[in-house]
Amino acid sequence: MIDTASRLAELGIELPEPPAALGAYVPYVITGDLLVTSGVVPLVRGELRCAGVVGADVDIEAAREGARLCALNLLALMRAAAGSLDAVRQLLRLDGFVRSAPGFTAQPAVLNGASELMVAVLGERGRHTRTAVGAAELPMGAAVEVSAMARIDPAALGHSA
Amino acid sequence: MIDTASRLAELGIELPEPPAALGAYVPYVITGDLLVTSGVVPLVRGELRCAGVVGADVDIEAAREGARLCALNLLALMRAAAGSLDAVRQLLRLDGFVRSAPGFTAQPAVLNGASELMVAVLGERGRHTRTAVGAAELPMGAAVEVSAMARIDPAALGHSA
Amino acid sequence: MIDTASRLAELGIELPEPPAALGAYVPYVITGDLLVTSGVVPLVRGELRCAGVVGADVDIEAAREGARLCALNLLALMRAAAGSLDAVRQLLRLDGFVRSAPGFTAQPAVLNGASELMVAVLGERGRHTRTAVGAAELPMGAAVEVSAMARIDPAALGHSA
Repeated sequence: MIDTASRLAELGIELPEPPAALGAYVPYVITGDLLVTSGVVPLVRGELRCAGVVGADVDIEAAREGARLCALNLLALMRAAAGSLDAVRQLLRLDGFVRSAPGFTAQPAVLNGASELMVAVLGERGRHTRTAVGAAELPMGAAVEVSAMARIDPAALGHSA
Repeated sequence: MIDTASRLAELGIELPEPPAALGAYVPYVITGDLLVTSGVVPLVRGELRCAGVVGADVDIEAAREGARLCALNLLALMRAAAGSLDAVRQLLRLDGFVRSAPGFTAQPAVLNGASELMVAVLGERGRHTRTAVGAAELPMGAAVEVSAMARIDPAALGHSA
Repeated sequence: MIDTASRLAELGIELPEPPAALGAYVPYVITGDLLVTSGVVPLVRGELRCAGVVGADVDIEAAREGARLCALNLLALMRAAAGSLDAVRQLLRLDGFVRSAPGFTAQPAVLNGASELMVAVLGERGRHTRTAVGAAELPMGAAVEVSAMARIDPAALGHSA
């Protein structure tokens, strides 16, 4: 098992505070060995960093960075849920929505910003399936929204985060 | 374990008939301790009660009520699937899609109509993760569509509904 | 247990090569008894066969055929993942997105092209829940995208495909 905290330090990544819910729901649920997160948008300390329509007022590089911020928020949620990212056995799925201008079809390139971060941090355990869809609109006017589902090791659950 | 039938009675809620599928699929599947539903729209006895585009011809309050109708239909499906809502151990996820006018970004406020009902009926067991996305279009012209995933207690499955 | 290879032969269906990922993700994950696929578009040998906007430049019949191609790709992925489609115990969910022109609301009719193929090939094991949503845009300009989640029998995993 990789020590994920050391890996984060090597990459120079400090995870943000896990984002609060934007409504009457919870940021994550653990049940048995399944961890399910809510959808997150590119918030940093409660402030939206990537708003707009990709392919119109947001370019691919900015949207990729927005997707990366979503992944940082998802890692923060998973760490808060499981106590440590070492308890994540396998990231199963990222569902990604990109607010898309008419004719913008590079949703996969945008979402690679999230996917590549997951593999950088979690290694083989971060290799996941993905859906990539162009949304008409997203909460708060965000350019990207991503949610995650992971298999965890219930025996490794800790609260040392 | 809360007696969910009494809770529904206290709230003055009578669940509708579980909605039929709109195509070549089934309304729910149970496998092991996982219950997965199909997406539902705000149907009452086969009639669509909340059609249109939110932020254009449907306002937030009407859309919230549409989302609440989706949640009633999901509860009806879960009861039909599990025999009793007492067998629902934890609602894991609601995936919500709101048919959104350009610039409409209050999908979370709309979907709170579904989320709040789940918590009112199921209590702690109803606290769930959520995704909220603005869809371009939805089946039948519905304003909202929501699907659910829940963990159930296979030992509590009954057919006393 | 039905011999799925014989059923495919009866139906005159030859599954395609499983589609490669369009980004930094994997086409499928198996963990325990759960098989999760990525979203797939109507690719045949890497070439997109059903591009455009349904209800504008793609009609319902063409989009249904596009959805059927997605289902063939999903079956190919599931066979590659599990070694044999006989290991699929139950298809749990198809999530379908149809790139939709304004006012196009027949997403369920389009996605029946995928759903009906699953039941034809897998029989009772292919009866699944479904979500049907109208997307603004989809990767590569595809008209349809579908992903799948299935319960498998870990004891039946083989590599005899």
